[in-house]
Amino acid sequence: MYKIAFDVMGSDLGPKIAVESALEFLKNKKDLMIVFVGDKTQIESVLKEEKNVDPSQYEIFSTTEVIDMHGSIFDVKRKKDASLVRALELVKDKQVHGMLTGGNSGAFLAGSHFILGELPGITRPGFMPTFPTAVEGKVTLFLDAGANNDNSAEDLYNYAKLATTYSKAVLGVKSPEVGLLNVGTEEGKGKDLQKDAWKLLTADKSLNYKGYIESREMLTGVVDIMVTDGFSGNIALKAMEGTSKLLLTTIKATVMKSFVAKMGALLMRGVFKEVKRKFDYKDHAGAILIGANGIVFKSHGSNDIQGFVSTLRMTYDAVKNDVLVKMKKEMGIQ
Amino acid sequence: MYKIAFDVMGSDLGPKIAVESALEFLKNKKDLMIVFVGDKTQIESVLKEEKNVDPSQYEIFSTTEVIDMHGSIFDVKRKKDASLVRALELVKDKQVHGMLTGGNSGAFLAGSHFILGELPGITRPGFMPTFPTAVEGKVTLFLDAGANNDNSAEDLYNYAKLATTYSKAVLGVKSPEVGLLNVGTEEGKGKDLQKDAWKLLTADKSLNYKGYIESREMLTGVVDIMVTDGFSGNIALKAMEGTSKLLLTTIKATVMKSFVAKMGALLMRGVFKEVKRKFDYKDHAGAILIGANGIVFKSHGSNDIQGFVSTLRMTYDAVKNDVLVKMKKEMGIQ
Repeated sequence: MYKIAFDVMGSDLGPKIAVESALEFLKNKKDLMIVFVGDKTQIESVLKEEKNVDPSQYEIFSTTEVIDMHGSIFDVKRKKDASLVRALELVKDKQVHGMLTGGNSGAFLAGSHFILGELPGITRPGFMPTFPTAVEGKVTLFLDAGANNDNSAEDLYNYAKLATTYSKAVLGVKSPEVGLLNVGTEEGKGKDLQKDAWKLLTADKSLNYKGYIESREMLTGVVDIMVTDGFSGNIALKAMEGTSKLLLTTIKATVMKSFVAKMGALLMRGVFKEVKRKFDYKDHAGAILIGANGIVFKSHGSNDIQGFVSTLRMTYDAVKNDVLVKMKKEMGIQ
Repeated sequence: MYKIAFDVMGSDLGPKIAVESALEFLKNKKDLMIVFVGDKTQIESVLKEEKNVDPSQYEIFSTTEVIDMHGSIFDVKRKKDASLVRALELVKDKQVHGMLTGGNSGAFLAGSHFILGELPGITRPGFMPTFPTAVEGKVTLFLDAGANNDNSAEDLYNYAKLATTYSKAVLGVKSPEVGLLNVGTEEGKGKDLQKDAWKLLTADKSLNYKGYIESREMLTGVVDIMVTDGFSGNIALKAMEGTSKLLLTTIKATVMKSFVAKMGALLMRGVFKEVKRKFDYKDHAGAILIGANGIVFKSHGSNDIQGFVSTLRMTYDAVKNDVLVKMKKEMGIQ
């Protein structure tokens, strides 16, 4: 039985959506138990409403404090009984195989650092979401998506190594191709960071390094892994999200202005469904904090059920494929 | 009569497209003369094919050398008679009011630096393209889009000042709103660069500074001007371009798989035309090098006629609105 702790208190919308998402996900995962970490009364009131819940598939770990979206990173030290803190402690104490939270990113990063620490050799863990690509069934692992403001070339090199292990173990990619985000594809482009990372990545023959990739190529599925610093990564990812959302919204709004277009949109329903399925960010709403000494995931706090279920799936896949042990081995730790 | 020098040799596709674009643009601009800078024989052979060309609206400045896309920045010093070099010299010698090129970016930046120099107080000119937004008729000026790898907070502050002058003079915006690209909107987010730039921008009450903007908001038309460093700017812009292109391509490809969807697309033709018109990057294919001591524009080398015409329009608008003099005044130079 795999065990995952779910901090259900951090999400913007309260624990209801989080608990419902977990119950939805559990339906088809008979080898999984979820530990709901949070306010017992609130969690139980959601559970009471649900039928067909297998009581052997969940536990409640009752906590009395919450670090909300406006909380500070120091709350991790101040609020000993916060759901986020307790969920991380369950990972540390090996009571669970992994955890996820929809809560405060800063507190999550600080909590992971203080409670779990990092894998030896890693100084700055990175957020690694996946995003869908134009190639059917292919996702790209992208990091750092914003856990850090600054990264060193060594960080980027370590990200490539950890993500390669993850890609092999969890996604089953045999020889994951690695790209380095830059403003051009020719050698010599970019800042010292990119040039130094290029050297490290080229020197390690165990990596399938493909060179620089421009952000306009990111979604084409040209590589399995894209590494960059947390600042650029956050800028690139949000630009993609914003553009995709705005384009689809604009198409919808323009359709509504004309009867003929509405008829057309009806006939094109299958197309939009397909495109949405392909590029839906809600199906990629979570990110592992890679480099942390534990399997810990951050989900968007504004998630709906689809978003939380996608993060639960990623956490489950990482746990089931024993990715932490494999990453430790890759980093030379037995 | 306004005079603009057009380096027609730099483009990937040869001078034909460039000359044809200029003739197309000249049709409705009777107060403009274009100086074609490049190989006389090639230019004349394109001109011969065209009817209805008013010979008082163009001149040819014959050159014997070319700096192509693979040229180095040192070619600016080595190739004295390169079309790019001559076009920049025409600006310096006040033979023309401005110039544009579809050529090599690196050589263009080096040439502008050596031949024109910068406005006093400016150390790193920036590429400033415009991009369309969700707000009908509103474009956002965006800089630096990649002229530099690194920028200081002072650069970003100067960009805000120059772009504000440009927005007022060329776009007629009364009080242009300025945003600073960052990974979050709260004060304290980002690197030292963003924090220091925030201070400078907040302190100058002549600017209409609106604070940090995330890249997912860029296309919403939330501000008139977005400033950032050249590395992040390039990443953000290309991510937007790539996403927009890929989404529309995917919709098209998915439509082609089904007869019903094809019928739907036919009925939705007006919608796609409208969306394409709104977000067509080809209508925004040029960028002024702002901070250079002259009105100089870079157009994509891979442009078609639509792309070059859009850059010609921007150059013409900048020249006609005397933007260099206004920027000099803003920077305290009479």
